[in-house]
Amino acid sequence: MTDTRTGRLLAGVALSIGLLAGAAHANESAMKAASDPNGWGMYSKGYDGTRFSPLKEINADNVKNLKLAYSFSLASLRSNESSPLVIGDTLYVSSSWGPKYVYALDAATGARKWTYEPDIPDDVLQFACCDVNSRGVAYADGMIFVGRLDGKMVALDAATGKEKWKTTVIDYKQGSVVTSPPLVVKDKVIIGFGGGEYGVRGSLQAFDVKTGKEVWRTYTVPLKNEPNGDSWKGDSAEHGGGAAWLTGTYDPKTNTVFWGTSNPGPWNTAIRSTGDGNFGKLSNLYTSSTIAFDPDTGKIKWWQQNTPADAWDYDGVNEAVLADLKIGGKTTPVFMKADRNGFFFVTNRETGKGITAEKFVPVTWANKWDVKTGRADENPAQRAGPGHPAKNACPNLIGGKNWQPMSYNPGTGLVYIPSNNVCMDWSVSDISYKRGVFYLGAEFPTLPGPGGYLGELIAWDPVANKKVWGMKSDLPFNGGTMTTAGNLVFWGDLHGDFRAINATNGKELWKKNLGSGIGAGPITYSVKGKQYVAIVVGRTAALPAFLGDVGKKMTAAAPEGGSLFVFSLN
Amino acid sequence: MTDTRTGRLLAGVALSIGLLAGAAHANESAMKAASDPNGWGMYSKGYDGTRFSPLKEINADNVKNLKLAYSFSLASLRSNESSPLVIGDTLYVSSSWGPKYVYALDAATGARKWTYEPDIPDDVLQFACCDVNSRGVAYADGMIFVGRLDGKMVALDAATGKEKWKTTVIDYKQGSVVTSPPLVVKDKVIIGFGGGEYGVRGSLQAFDVKTGKEVWRTYTVPLKNEPNGDSWKGDSAEHGGGAAWLTGTYDPKTNTVFWGTSNPGPWNTAIRSTGDGNFGKLSNLYTSSTIAFDPDTGKIKWWQQNTPADAWDYDGVNEAVLADLKIGGKTTPVFMKADRNGFFFVTNRETGKGITAEKFVPVTWANKWDVKTGRADENPAQRAGPGHPAKNACPNLIGGKNWQPMSYNPGTGLVYIPSNNVCMDWSVSDISYKRGVFYLGAEFPTLPGPGGYLGELIAWDPVANKKVWGMKSDLPFNGGTMTTAGNLVFWGDLHGDFRAINATNGKELWKKNLGSGIGAGPITYSVKGKQYVAIVVGRTAALPAFLGDVGKKMTAAAPEGGSLFVFSLN
Repeated sequence: MTDTRTGRLLAGVALSIGLLAGAAHANESAMKAASDPNGWGMYSKGYDGTRFSPLKEINADNVKNLKLAYSFSLASLRSNESSPLVIGDTLYVSSSWGPKYVYALDAATGARKWTYEPDIPDDVLQFACCDVNSRGVAYADGMIFVGRLDGKMVALDAATGKEKWKTTVIDYKQGSVVTSPPLVVKDKVIIGFGGGEYGVRGSLQAFDVKTGKEVWRTYTVPLKNEPNGDSWKGDSAEHGGGAAWLTGTYDPKTNTVFWGTSNPGPWNTAIRSTGDGNFGKLSNLYTSSTIAFDPDTGKIKWWQQNTPADAWDYDGVNEAVLADLKIGGKTTPVFMKADRNGFFFVTNRETGKGITAEKFVPVTWANKWDVKTGRADENPAQRAGPGHPAKNACPNLIGGKNWQPMSYNPGTGLVYIPSNNVCMDWSVSDISYKRGVFYLGAEFPTLPGPGGYLGELIAWDPVANKKVWGMKSDLPFNGGTMTTAGNLVFWGDLHGDFRAINATNGKELWKKNLGSGIGAGPITYSVKGKQYVAIVVGRTAALPAFLGDVGKKMTAAAPEGGSLFVFSLN
Repeated sequence: MTDTRTGRLLAGVALSIGLLAGAAHANESAMKAASDPNGWGMYSKGYDGTRFSPLKEINADNVKNLKLAYSFSLASLRSNESSPLVIGDTLYVSSSWGPKYVYALDAATGARKWTYEPDIPDDVLQFACCDVNSRGVAYADGMIFVGRLDGKMVALDAATGKEKWKTTVIDYKQGSVVTSPPLVVKDKVIIGFGGGEYGVRGSLQAFDVKTGKEVWRTYTVPLKNEPNGDSWKGDSAEHGGGAAWLTGTYDPKTNTVFWGTSNPGPWNTAIRSTGDGNFGKLSNLYTSSTIAFDPDTGKIKWWQQNTPADAWDYDGVNEAVLADLKIGGKTTPVFMKADRNGFFFVTNRETGKGITAEKFVPVTWANKWDVKTGRADENPAQRAGPGHPAKNACPNLIGGKNWQPMSYNPGTGLVYIPSNNVCMDWSVSDISYKRGVFYLGAEFPTLPGPGGYLGELIAWDPVANKKVWGMKSDLPFNGGTMTTAGNLVFWGDLHGDFRAINATNGKELWKKNLGSGIGAGPITYSVKGKQYVAIVVGRTAALPAFLGDVGKKMTAAAPEGGSLFVFSLN
């Protein structure tokens, strides 16, 4: 990492390449794959999570000529959220249901090389709060790593798809499914699991890349007698949530992994929050937080709790995207997080100190967030408790942004956030823990957000802390984004419209309806000098049931699906 | 119908339009839809079944520029075999599973207008020998008619998708599912059902277009005391098959409907054939036949039994395509049938008299077929009986051609046949009838056909009785065909490759892989002056299980799927 490098001025170069300077600390093969400008080697392109590609054969001038190269059926319906990998000339993509399948394809033609079909038990559906998702796979050392709904993780031979090892991450029957790919750092495969809604106790764990043997396990929620265990009422930490169900990012320079943690459980704060909730000390650590830890040992270095004593299901798993921003004239190593709670956090990733936290969507639960104290200036009426419900709290529980990945373009200096504009009423009720079933203790009828729209693709300036342009949607929970040196952003929505957009000014340049709702993040890659853009479609099926009339609109927007579409120029 | 019209010379004009001269005899609204050159009003385009469109904006010169207009997820996997309809600017398409869904879409954009989701019981799968198919719907009088796996037929309001009436065609639990759309003639909706493998007794039935009340029911298999009942041994006619599970064609001039009937049941001839099988009198009437009947009364006018006393599962449902061919210098009203038994029949459709019957694929069960006597010159060693199996009999039980529709282009004078080149050993065993389960009595291991290929798109001259060109495939059971005045044939295969081919010379002009195997027939239509080509993809799932190693190749060719793809020029 060089000091001369600035996020705003260095167009066309992926941060993942910049991070190569620290390669000695990373997994060399994974780093090599991630730094290949022609490939898409990791879930978020590189360790930095920017989802930025330096490719520019397809660009703002010619993207209008984009044509279908091929389509590939994933043979599995419900919510398909997979972001493929491309290593060399092979594309790896997983389907929904656990995954039901992982496919290796010729990235240029779609011809299938192998299929992995694990035997996932049918009952995983009841333990997957928010659908039978698989967001993709990870690559390192000639292997493909797959987290599964049944709590297993496997390593496959990347050339053949044969299982090399299989390990247990967690017992899924407690309500803990694995839906996101792991992060491989050096000789360790690091992965979390879900279950914030089932009263699990979250943890991150590392497995030996060669054998699959567990190396360390770090709980994201300390028990009573552990440091910060007193941030929990009674024994509530034992079912305290803090599940780390998305994929983390990594800074090789400081050898630090960043990983988001979910909301605390249950949703009713009265059962688990100490003091006076947010107004007193930090509470329910390390839930709704970003934690920074040492990948060699799992030791937590520091954390940033984005929603202290969460009272709105502001699950904090959202990705920490690493960039070096010129802030106040000084190149600053930051991570950026568009939190479910509606604030966009810019934090010094080397010190853990907050720099800015600004609202990127309508937010009512807090007036502002003070990065100096690490506290929100809460709106007391919006924190529900027994006998006093919160009315029209914004964002609602799907958040200002959910899991759908944002992207950062060092050329434009902008972050492209798939945001939601949905609010809710919120009232709490009593709840007892029962293994493997919902542990909520809240009612949460959905309300449309202000302004007559429900979602918006926001181009956000993380230095000026303001929206530069936006593209509104009549639906929330639209797809993730990807951005390129061709001055483009790619983005799909729940109607199935997949778009190429001018990254600088937000002008729509190309659009194609792909027949099912899009949640996944697009990717791009190049094979034999030809650039391709790939997107998985397949509308969310479970989530709309939580959202009343808004959910009905989401369901009506498009049928379920499960296909990969790949586009290129002639 | 005018005498000046000849099939071979009149390029660019659909026979369905020619047949309009007899419109007084047809359903006027159905006829109008079928004769709209911009639409696709019936399963096979028109009453004549040619699957020929006069559209030529997309043609052999510019088809290389074909682009995806939109895709639409059918939200249902397994075998998707639907051929959409386009009435005005609305496209109607059904999915697999009974159908699970019927969708009405804006034909130009794919925007959904309505969805019909019937409540099909799960157990239909066990009564659907060859998958949970739906091959499409029919249109007339502002209604969409849908045959269902559960033996029901419904009429939907074409504008809203609401059920207008619902009727019972057959009790599906005997092994009789409805998989193909009906044919509407005047005030009657005529439909058959499947079950030749379950020992059903086939019938065709007509329902009042306004009320759904049954008007007539004509059995395709006469019982002991009925005319031709003596073509059955004992009481075997009661479970004699002859199921009419595809969709028929119609000649308004003579007011005659043509409909194919399935193989007799069981497969072991010893149980049901009289005399010495094929060598004596016609046997097991009217199975493996084309029957010609009066749509007003259901009265059978005449029949042509293509495989007398069938001993190979040469199910004879294949479509009778109507054309006026110049044969021996004389314009002759014919129907053409590429039979499962490997012979291409040309028959005078007004008299029922055979004109020619020539092999279009490798055939070993018969040396030739004599149109004068209506008998095949059989190869005795290929007719299995107790103790004497047939070795390497060709075609195998999927036939020289299966249900996948052929098309006829009056411009080229050629028929485009999706053919199979697969053989089998065949031995018989004893079998007793049990309601709702397979009634076969035969073993039939599959063998590749001669020549190192398993399927071929054949361009067949029905006058010269010879192949003009062919395009070989390493798989059988590829998709149906459609042909246009743009001198094009469209054809998809089990690999998911969808092709545009020069109709005259067989040159491949455009190809796109759509990610799942294709069985359906393509369609084309025009909205606001812009031509579109549409195809449903979704590989067969049940059939390969019957075909041993060949079946494994079919399954490996592509994943299951369920999507509509629509293409256009820029």
